[in-house]
Amino acid sequence: MTSSITVPSTHGLRCVARSQWAEYARPGSTRPVTIGSVRVGAGQTVMIAGPCTVESREQTLEIAGAVQQAGAAILRGGAYKPRTSPYAFQGLGEAALEILAEARRATGLPFVTEVMDPRLVETVGRVADALQIGSRSMQNFPLLREVGRLGKPVLLKRGFGNTVHEWLHAAEYIAAEGNLDIVLCERGIRTFADGPYARSTLDLAAIRAVREQTFLPVIVDPSHAAGRAELVPALAAAALAAGAQGLLVEVVAHAADRETARCDGPQGVLPADLAQMVRTARALR
Amino acid sequence: MTSSITVPSTHGLRCVARSQWAEYARPGSTRPVTIGSVRVGAGQTVMIAGPCTVESREQTLEIAGAVQQAGAAILRGGAYKPRTSPYAFQGLGEAALEILAEARRATGLPFVTEVMDPRLVETVGRVADALQIGSRSMQNFPLLREVGRLGKPVLLKRGFGNTVHEWLHAAEYIAAEGNLDIVLCERGIRTFADGPYARSTLDLAAIRAVREQTFLPVIVDPSHAAGRAELVPALAAAALAAGAQGLLVEVVAHAADRETARCDGPQGVLPADLAQMVRTARALR
Amino acid sequence: MTSSITVPSTHGLRCVARSQWAEYARPGSTRPVTIGSVRVGAGQTVMIAGPCTVESREQTLEIAGAVQQAGAAILRGGAYKPRTSPYAFQGLGEAALEILAEARRATGLPFVTEVMDPRLVETVGRVADALQIGSRSMQNFPLLREVGRLGKPVLLKRGFGNTVHEWLHAAEYIAAEGNLDIVLCERGIRTFADGPYARSTLDLAAIRAVREQTFLPVIVDPSHAAGRAELVPALAAAALAAGAQGLLVEVVAHAADRETARCDGPQGVLPADLAQMVRTARALR
Amino acid sequence: MTSSITVPSTHGLRCVARSQWAEYARPGSTRPVTIGSVRVGAGQTVMIAGPCTVESREQTLEIAGAVQQAGAAILRGGAYKPRTSPYAFQGLGEAALEILAEARRATGLPFVTEVMDPRLVETVGRVADALQIGSRSMQNFPLLREVGRLGKPVLLKRGFGNTVHEWLHAAEYIAAEGNLDIVLCERGIRTFADGPYARSTLDLAAIRAVREQTFLPVIVDPSHAAGRAELVPALAAAALAAGAQGLLVEVVAHAADRETARCDGPQGVLPADLAQMVRTARALR
Repeated sequence: MTSSITVPSTHGLRCVARSQWAEYARPGSTRPVTIGSVRVGAGQTVMIAGPCTVESREQTLEIAGAVQQAGAAILRGGAYKPRTSPYAFQGLGEAALEILAEARRATGLPFVTEVMDPRLVETVGRVADALQIGSRSMQNFPLLREVGRLGKPVLLKRGFGNTVHEWLHAAEYIAAEGNLDIVLCERGIRTFADGPYARSTLDLAAIRAVREQTFLPVIVDPSHAAGRAELVPALAAAALAAGAQGLLVEVVAHAADRETARCDGPQGVLPADLAQMVRTARALR
Repeated sequence: MTSSITVPSTHGLRCVARSQWAEYARPGSTRPVTIGSVRVGAGQTVMIAGPCTVESREQTLEIAGAVQQAGAAILRGGAYKPRTSPYAFQGLGEAALEILAEARRATGLPFVTEVMDPRLVETVGRVADALQIGSRSMQNFPLLREVGRLGKPVLLKRGFGNTVHEWLHAAEYIAAEGNLDIVLCERGIRTFADGPYARSTLDLAAIRAVREQTFLPVIVDPSHAAGRAELVPALAAAALAAGAQGLLVEVVAHAADRETARCDGPQGVLPADLAQMVRTARALR
Repeated sequence: MTSSITVPSTHGLRCVARSQWAEYARPGSTRPVTIGSVRVGAGQTVMIAGPCTVESREQTLEIAGAVQQAGAAILRGGAYKPRTSPYAFQGLGEAALEILAEARRATGLPFVTEVMDPRLVETVGRVADALQIGSRSMQNFPLLREVGRLGKPVLLKRGFGNTVHEWLHAAEYIAAEGNLDIVLCERGIRTFADGPYARSTLDLAAIRAVREQTFLPVIVDPSHAAGRAELVPALAAAALAAGAQGLLVEVVAHAADRETARCDGPQGVLPADLAQMVRTARALR
Repeated sequence: MTSSITVPSTHGLRCVARSQWAEYARPGSTRPVTIGSVRVGAGQTVMIAGPCTVESREQTLEIAGAVQQAGAAILRGGAYKPRTSPYAFQGLGEAALEILAEARRATGLPFVTEVMDPRLVETVGRVADALQIGSRSMQNFPLLREVGRLGKPVLLKRGFGNTVHEWLHAAEYIAAEGNLDIVLCERGIRTFADGPYARSTLDLAAIRAVREQTFLPVIVDPSHAAGRAELVPALAAAALAAGAQGLLVEVVAHAADRETARCDGPQGVLPADLAQMVRTARALR
């Protein structure tokens, strides 16, 4: 728009740089990523929702049904959980993958789940519709290469201590293996303001920065940034207004589950809240 | 909503604590602040717009007319500018106040302008409809007391290095002098992410935190957070979606002025962009 | 040393830029600042110590005697206190200045005390040997000009949210009024790491950056960075090893005073700890 | 010292918590970790030095000889490099391990080298005397478990976006597999101050925090925090004064190599600087 614009150069980016692809030269244009039969970045806001962690068959099926009813297009759920402490619940692993597959059959929703270990990429990739690279793994380069080689869609969260430059180069690691099916996900960064009222500070200016430099779709996870359920709808609306093309939201079946969930309970919204967020997303479009 | 909510206690806040006022017990209810004849926090999104700095009579009158046309309700413009360097343009001072008064007569818009020096509070207060406390002055306690005593509406920006707790207590300094006519304004905080694509990181979770603890209206300045014009509309929309009750926006008359403005040119939006932001604000409400 | 060094340009600095003064062209050379008869930046490590706040004549005289015994060269003590809350103890004001003057007579130590209000610069300047600009006032430009005009030595703390660039330009505001007697004081910045074990993160690389760009002496306040007494000696030693030319340390007369002090008690070291810090400082030189 | 001390609780830490081990109950006492025949945390300051990256046999042997002459006790050198871009030099891999083994034979110094991929832990562990977990891998939990199982000494760097709490729990992941031979290494965190004059902000208060909670030895890497060679000695001295039990330093053979090094050249100190740092370390002890 003006000659005084100074954005980070795409120098160094090759596969994922907008400037390298004639078909995505139009500012803001996106190369959609298809997960199951859902196209992310194709114009519709895509809601990805589900439990933080697969804790049981019953819990997961109940939430999966509820998020499908609420209008979510993709199911999420943790099978392998990155936990600060080795003594915290680490997820049900392969058993969780089977439960998620059953939830997919029951609801018709494709699912995304996190993988942390390059040795498990194939195992997870056999079942999941998309693989999530979590915030702590954003610069786990062997893992990035492995999900690049697998060729299934990847949901790449931004590291909470990482710059946009590093994030885009993490995507480049995946793309360099021949896999362009990458959805970027902003989830908040660490700042002096964290703690008292939010867990991380959502960096919404990053959405615009990312969309200037690349054609990859960008979504936002308001749940981890918020750290508490009441804040999630406001941050979700802000993210969409800022240009996010989808949301990744953690859901609990009942308010009481916030206290008993084995991981990140307090930030789980209720299905009714999710339904409201879907309506807001439609209104904002 | 749940018993697990933990927000910073209002312990220590008296005058501005929601919990101290029966009439503002309803979550989210606001005590409107009247600037000129404009009520901030009364349901309508209030757009405050104008030049970063009053540079000349012509420039200011032109922009004032344009922002009024674009739908802004209040004019902004700097007479006394806080500048990092003593050799940078410091504003036209009293002459700027007269120009702003003329622009008010011409457009009918009340105006807000910054005061930095407690010795100038009376001078500025004689002319301005509201006094702005800038980000660098948020903990200038003698100044806060002085604008508290003056009794005119105050626009209190959050310090870029300050917590929400400190911000609310800065408001308490003003209120403790008997002046509750305070509009809070989030403008971004300093984080490791600053610089390459945005000047500060807008902390939109703070809007919700503030509105939980106090009944004071909260607006957002997307211009200083962005640092460049193209980013302003996206951050403005995000702020409103997150619950901001108004915006403070810097405007240039012509794109070329971004290069020649004596202060913060690159972030000034055009009147046409402002008009679009006004329409977005209406749509979001 | 090598051609690949990239430090922030001194562009914009005039009076305080090393590159502008032939006599300070030698890297690391300092223009000493004389407070009372004490020269800061003249080779000896200067210890500035005393109570956080002047609470009473007895408390101040006792601590003043103790810090003089422990080897401190300059007394510190707050008369006007910048407090987050308007309801917190704000200092004894002019009465505290008289107590500090009495402590000076009793010990022979010159004293430094903070001024926040440009209207009080003359009052404080009549009594104090040096005026402190606190962290929250670093960009209080009218105040900087006023202490510049007064001509007495100034202790300029870095704002906890401010860059080195801004800090040096704040010094330039003072110098531009003809006053070069400025001592810079690093006291920690706000980061995501603050809180659990330290109040701010001491930015010791800033010492070197500052000494590259200016000839002004630089000291460090380990007390506010630490927030608790046991951490102060380690941070003090680190600061001196990193090149600080003095320390600003808060002292309590007795350990029990940490609980009862009206401001920042937990970070006050005992006189015996201060004496040990003086010995460490001598050993490090 | 006083009852008002509030440090993060060791709740959740088991194997590495000082409070769990009667033999390390004395504050500051350390359980030494033996690398080759060098004991880290046994009273002597341990200097670990070498090239950022093994680029060739000649370069590595030359630097290894020089750092041994300069007084370093352990050699460092990168075989597998975590690089922001997939197109940057990624290290020589197994060939580098052989070169490091040759350098060990030539100098008698044991060596430490980074491993990023759990599938390479065994390969690296067959040759290296200690395995480094880099800053980006601090929360790579499968990798932490794998080096825990291997049983060789581990150098665990703090993530630049991670808290002390998370760092200690990362050590707990290793320890939970039965391996207590962990050396912690602070290397700077990301803050708003980064960039202009230092690459990260060294968090020296963390040294004390860590030594309160655990008996594991703690060293500091001043090279990555500094990002430029001239700053390294000052930060190294500060780290030791703050209680670091060793240093991890990057070395170039000749000043000109700073321009041509394939990774992080600008921060490499010369062997003569390293020798001076060894003398400073002895003087500080």
